Amino acid sequence: MTARRLAGTDLAARIRAEVAERAAARRDAGRPARLVIVTATDDEASAWYVRSIASAAGKAGLDCDVADLGTAATADDISARLAGLSADPAVDGVMLQTPLPPGVVLADVSGAIEPAKDVDGANPVSLGRLAVGLPAYAPATAAAVVALLDEYAVGLAGARAVVVGRSAVVGKPLAHLLLDRDATVTVCHSRTRDLAEVTSTADVLVAAVGRTHLVTPEHVRDGAVVVDVGTNPTADGGLAGDVDPAVAEVAAALTPVPGGVGPVTTALLLKNVVD
Amino acid sequence: MTARRLAGTDLAARIRAEVAERAAARRDAGRPARLVIVTATDDEASAWYVRSIASAAGKAGLDCDVADLGTAATADDISARLAGLSADPAVDGVMLQTPLPPGVVLADVSGAIEPAKDVDGANPVSLGRLAVGLPAYAPATAAAVVALLDEYAVGLAGARAVVVGRSAVVGKPLAHLLLDRDATVTVCHSRTRDLAEVTSTADVLVAAVGRTHLVTPEHVRDGAVVVDVGTNPTADGGLAGDVDPAVAEVAAALTPVPGGVGPVTTALLLKNVVD
Repeated sequence: MTARRLAGTDLAARIRAEVAERAAARRDAGRPARLVIVTATDDEASAWYVRSIASAAGKAGLDCDVADLGTAATADDISARLAGLSADPAVDGVMLQTPLPPGVVLADVSGAIEPAKDVDGANPVSLGRLAVGLPAYAPATAAAVVALLDEYAVGLAGARAVVVGRSAVVGKPLAHLLLDRDATVTVCHSRTRDLAEVTSTADVLVAAVGRTHLVTPEHVRDGAVVVDVGTNPTADGGLAGDVDPAVAEVAAALTPVPGGVGPVTTALLLKNVVD
Repeated sequence: MTARRLAGTDLAARIRAEVAERAAARRDAGRPARLVIVTATDDEASAWYVRSIASAAGKAGLDCDVADLGTAATADDISARLAGLSADPAVDGVMLQTPLPPGVVLADVSGAIEPAKDVDGANPVSLGRLAVGLPAYAPATAAAVVALLDEYAVGLAGARAVVVGRSAVVGKPLAHLLLDRDATVTVCHSRTRDLAEVTSTADVLVAAVGRTHLVTPEHVRDGAVVVDVGTNPTADGGLAGDVDPAVAEVAAALTPVPGGVGPVTTALLLKNVVD
């Protein structure tokens, strides 16, 4: 068997078209939609991602500024900038790009992003609201996983979903989104014993650990749907997922990297800005 | 085999003794510790629970007021009172008792409790902070489960933990606490297919659904540790757990109801007030 390829490009294009329409209306009304991305890193992969968001924003007719605070920025510097942007009525969305400078912890500074402008769901308040079912922005990556599963009509109610990775930006919020859709949800991580035994119970398996090809055919039940959130840089400047391509011989469906979750993530981020 | 009985009474007594010592010091300093419990229900089980907290608080030397807003209270009434108590420097802890009047949703009003006084972890902000590892009060019941497991030296790192119940006051925060302790965590609920198959994978099984004796021996793997969070009223005025007593023949250890999680919950709630 060869897995169905769950590409995200068409869905992303549809979301971007909707965003462009709403951004144009905003612009016509004299009030363009504006996203500000705060960075404090010279990480290459991060810079590439920020450029791709800025480019997509530009194409969709959104204003997008990058506020680079430099690698010497302190937690106070970053918090102050995030608070200032949150208070600025000309800014619709504020995103803080990781990695942060050594010693600066995301959760300590992301609270300075006002939840209403927290388009990438970085503020712990957004996560808490999400967990209890209140309106809140989910991290765009987590939301993209669910949007992609919906796009291909993958049933979640009653399904066994296993998420590999417990980060505050993907694994944990995704667990809440999947629970909210009535899946039975398991979260695995680096300390999980016999990972393959656990992941093999999944109807829907999501890999979000950031380790190239960690998930192999032995981890996957015949006929499972596998979502690959990994975007690991390769030696030749490309991207590799967390899922070994050989999984396509076991899974019923698999999202590609690149071209799967990634484009949907960017599109949803822009959608949150115009929302 | 008969399961070891994981009683919570000794642990609760030790916590209460520590609380009493600190409460006495506060009183000597002319600044007694004060808990206010806000209620808006005439539910009998709830009234019983509130009385038991007030009694335990009194014995530990804490001031404890009950602010009964009546069953006609609106969400605005409740939020306003919670905000007022949060702003009152004479109040150390604010707890909102459920059930709430029809149409009032806990998550909509609990945000009015300032996180620093949110001794029962009801504010979604507390849950979000907990999820990302920031200091926050966990709901006392969820914290009590982990404290009881620690009391009996039940290893959590690498263990498979299954939580039955996805409520915002027990299941979800408990999942985060267990993840934080490096367990592999699964959350089940009413829509879970083949519940027994999932729960049978658990090294540590926690029942927190509020349905009398829902968990039977068929749900439990030989040698599992089972924690019963249920406090279901019985016809004769007693309490029944979510776990069928017959589970004691399969499990390695089981918390009793009453006398298991309950007393530890009350003790931790008081500890949060003096913290």
